[in-house]
Amino acid sequence: MENVLVKIYKVPKLKDPILIEGLPGVGNVGKLAAEYLLSNLNGVKFAEIYSKFFPPQVLINEDGTLYLVKNELYYVKTKGKNDLVFLVGDYQGLSNEGQFELSYKVLEVVKSLHVKTIFTLGGFGTGQLTDEPRVFGAATNKDLVEAMKKYNVVFSGGEPSNGIVGAAGLLLGLGMNFFNMEGVCLMGETSGYFTDPKGAKAVLNVLVKILNLKIDFTELETKIKALNELTTKMQEEIDQKIKKEDLGYIG
Amino acid sequence: MENVLVKIYKVPKLKDPILIEGLPGVGNVGKLAAEYLLSNLNGVKFAEIYSKFFPPQVLINEDGTLYLVKNELYYVKTKGKNDLVFLVGDYQGLSNEGQFELSYKVLEVVKSLHVKTIFTLGGFGTGQLTDEPRVFGAATNKDLVEAMKKYNVVFSGGEPSNGIVGAAGLLLGLGMNFFNMEGVCLMGETSGYFTDPKGAKAVLNVLVKILNLKIDFTELETKIKALNELTTKMQEEIDQKIKKEDLGYIG
Amino acid sequence: MENVLVKIYKVPKLKDPILIEGLPGVGNVGKLAAEYLLSNLNGVKFAEIYSKFFPPQVLINEDGTLYLVKNELYYVKTKGKNDLVFLVGDYQGLSNEGQFELSYKVLEVVKSLHVKTIFTLGGFGTGQLTDEPRVFGAATNKDLVEAMKKYNVVFSGGEPSNGIVGAAGLLLGLGMNFFNMEGVCLMGETSGYFTDPKGAKAVLNVLVKILNLKIDFTELETKIKALNELTTKMQEEIDQKIKKEDLGYIG
Amino acid sequence: MENVLVKIYKVPKLKDPILIEGLPGVGNVGKLAAEYLLSNLNGVKFAEIYSKFFPPQVLINEDGTLYLVKNELYYVKTKGKNDLVFLVGDYQGLSNEGQFELSYKVLEVVKSLHVKTIFTLGGFGTGQLTDEPRVFGAATNKDLVEAMKKYNVVFSGGEPSNGIVGAAGLLLGLGMNFFNMEGVCLMGETSGYFTDPKGAKAVLNVLVKILNLKIDFTELETKIKALNELTTKMQEEIDQKIKKEDLGYIG
Repeated sequence: MENVLVKIYKVPKLKDPILIEGLPGVGNVGKLAAEYLLSNLNGVKFAEIYSKFFPPQVLINEDGTLYLVKNELYYVKTKGKNDLVFLVGDYQGLSNEGQFELSYKVLEVVKSLHVKTIFTLGGFGTGQLTDEPRVFGAATNKDLVEAMKKYNVVFSGGEPSNGIVGAAGLLLGLGMNFFNMEGVCLMGETSGYFTDPKGAKAVLNVLVKILNLKIDFTELETKIKALNELTTKMQEEIDQKIKKEDLGYIG
Repeated sequence: MENVLVKIYKVPKLKDPILIEGLPGVGNVGKLAAEYLLSNLNGVKFAEIYSKFFPPQVLINEDGTLYLVKNELYYVKTKGKNDLVFLVGDYQGLSNEGQFELSYKVLEVVKSLHVKTIFTLGGFGTGQLTDEPRVFGAATNKDLVEAMKKYNVVFSGGEPSNGIVGAAGLLLGLGMNFFNMEGVCLMGETSGYFTDPKGAKAVLNVLVKILNLKIDFTELETKIKALNELTTKMQEEIDQKIKKEDLGYIG
Repeated sequence: MENVLVKIYKVPKLKDPILIEGLPGVGNVGKLAAEYLLSNLNGVKFAEIYSKFFPPQVLINEDGTLYLVKNELYYVKTKGKNDLVFLVGDYQGLSNEGQFELSYKVLEVVKSLHVKTIFTLGGFGTGQLTDEPRVFGAATNKDLVEAMKKYNVVFSGGEPSNGIVGAAGLLLGLGMNFFNMEGVCLMGETSGYFTDPKGAKAVLNVLVKILNLKIDFTELETKIKALNELTTKMQEEIDQKIKKEDLGYIG
Repeated sequence: MENVLVKIYKVPKLKDPILIEGLPGVGNVGKLAAEYLLSNLNGVKFAEIYSKFFPPQVLINEDGTLYLVKNELYYVKTKGKNDLVFLVGDYQGLSNEGQFELSYKVLEVVKSLHVKTIFTLGGFGTGQLTDEPRVFGAATNKDLVEAMKKYNVVFSGGEPSNGIVGAAGLLLGLGMNFFNMEGVCLMGETSGYFTDPKGAKAVLNVLVKILNLKIDFTELETKIKALNELTTKMQEEIDQKIKKEDLGYIG
């Protein structure tokens, strides 16, 4: 069995396409952002990626059918300068070698579609809740760093200090060294404790400006509102409990 | 050394064969069911599968001879429409990659025998003892889901929620994507705490109806009776102990 | 880099050679026995085996020189029917796959020397000290089991129940299936807590009778005596301590 | 994707070059020593080494640009008999197999530059602070051991007893067996608790004498002084605290 198996349904003809990656990771910020954007833009699936580096597992749909864990490639034709290619999926590679093999294979496929620029989306875990998550960045060259600063992307002196782990880092690192590509990693600030729509919205806000796209944020905002209510309620319960304990202590 | 080594003694000529898989897993339900059926139908071994993905180990027979850990393929010629091929064995692959490699190789072999349909057998671990274990299912397509419902197979909205791990999942997932096969995973409800003949019988009851086979359940029922007596006795001892402690407390 | 690299200094011409394996393992019984026999028979090294499946490590000699961890092959020309080939070394393969790859490669090499029979030496860990360690066996066929019983080798109904792990098992398991070889694993009873010369002597006692060899046991007996004195002294100290504590308690 | 990818910018023409290795390890002694020497001698980078055996990670520079984790090769042209090649980098291979693959590939590259001699630099962890760290050695042959003793390199009867793990060992072990190279590992005594400039200076002191190089130690001595002040201050605080506790106890 080959390490990575790519089933391409149809090779799309795309205009200077840009790759957008959003796989599971810190706070699932990248996955949430990419899948939301993809759904808003009505992306078309054109390839599935299977690999022995994913968990040896099938997942089960609501209707009782099963599917092998996978990554997927979609394309979106836009009215602007650049069409889009999306990489989304159930898992990242489980082993270190697997991470490299998968990113390398994805780059081979998107190279054949003439992708020259990559945006990888992820979370920047701070361990703290925040109302206005910032978007941190790292880029393959100085010009892109400067270009991103105009969109309020924060470049924070070597932060994150442990670098960027996984596909969001490797696609850029391998892309710049072996595929003549350039790109940016956009990381939404997030506690990292749960799937975080706020971090995803922060990232998307930046990305749609960069790419000059128009999308409907309603559904994402509904998720944020629900999450806010949940965290507010939890906070109130905690406050209530503390108050009671204080009274008990005084009494 | 090749990753997976298949020793084929003889390539059987089979009539529209169906693959039945039962390897070690949750409650050993799949292994028990497949081996019981195989023994009842007097299956004939035609291939052995060795692999560096199994533990580096030989096992020892009662008579002092040893054998390398392996999987095995058997065939059964039936009077019905479909002959049968069985996959049974000592172990599943130890690593993630090994799981993929082994399932892929098995599919290559059974493809050459013109297998188009697969039943994989396993356990659905609930952590609780049950008198009437249900049989849960997942299938490669909607038609098979509907067909299975007629046999009281339960399709329970995305359950098991972590999918199906190992050969029982991969054979179906790889089979549908790369070998043009379809199939069903039948999972007998089981506590998962021990090798469970009740779960195995539940699975077999369904499977023999689907395949229109007749088998003798006597031996399996003897095992179930022995297990029932054991668990009843254990329960009584626990009850007794609780009663004594209660009296002691009252006294 | 190849998985396993074999440096053959010289291909010896051997008369119906038998392979004897003794690598590190339970109580180092096999290693001790094989290396003692090899040294007694003045074996000649003819090949070194290096592999990425060994630890990434060099070891240092007393004189300050270093060497890469390795296995080694030696030969011994005898006056009897069979010359001997020895497999000894610093380590076994670290990973499961590595164990298979290494044993498979060794078998390829010794097959080219026309080896047809293998004796693998190891320890049978019981967790208990014993004065007269027995020698347990497992063999590739029933005839060898019977032949070994004449030398008081114990075949104990499927014991060891977890089989034989590592090179001592794999050389036999792979040898019988893929190299048309037969053989026996001889396991000296041992506590398994330390390198055990008693277990090694028990194994050698049997092996030299089978192979009709004459060796000098003096050095091995010196080691056993030293170990006996050590364990006796430790036991006395423990007894003394218990006695004192008893007195203290009484006082 | 290949296991190890070497990007060679330019193949330098070198005069009997010697390889000097200093990768992360115990006390980062080797890394610190090699990078300090390299910087002092104004080495020129001529190759980058990427591998799936490194962590799947990009690191981020102060200016917001990112780079894939890597090793690097530099050369230095000297006025003496031997030009120099340096191997430095962010990480060693993560897995055992990766360690072997990386060292083997480096040896293939430097063999093509006609390297015949290797110095690998590392730390010898003792768990204790020391004012005058010694330099321990191990070499590929007896002549080199004797030659090194003249430079006060300590060869201490099989020490370190667990050998030398990682690239510092493998480059020598693989080099002597498969590339006809010889060499020495120089290990600076170090506590191993932190990046240790003292150990690095001890190693460099020896190395520059062997290679007849002149370098400026000022910057390294500044680091040592800073570290000394830090450890002195920490010691004083501990002493102070102990004194206070003593008084408290007396009072």
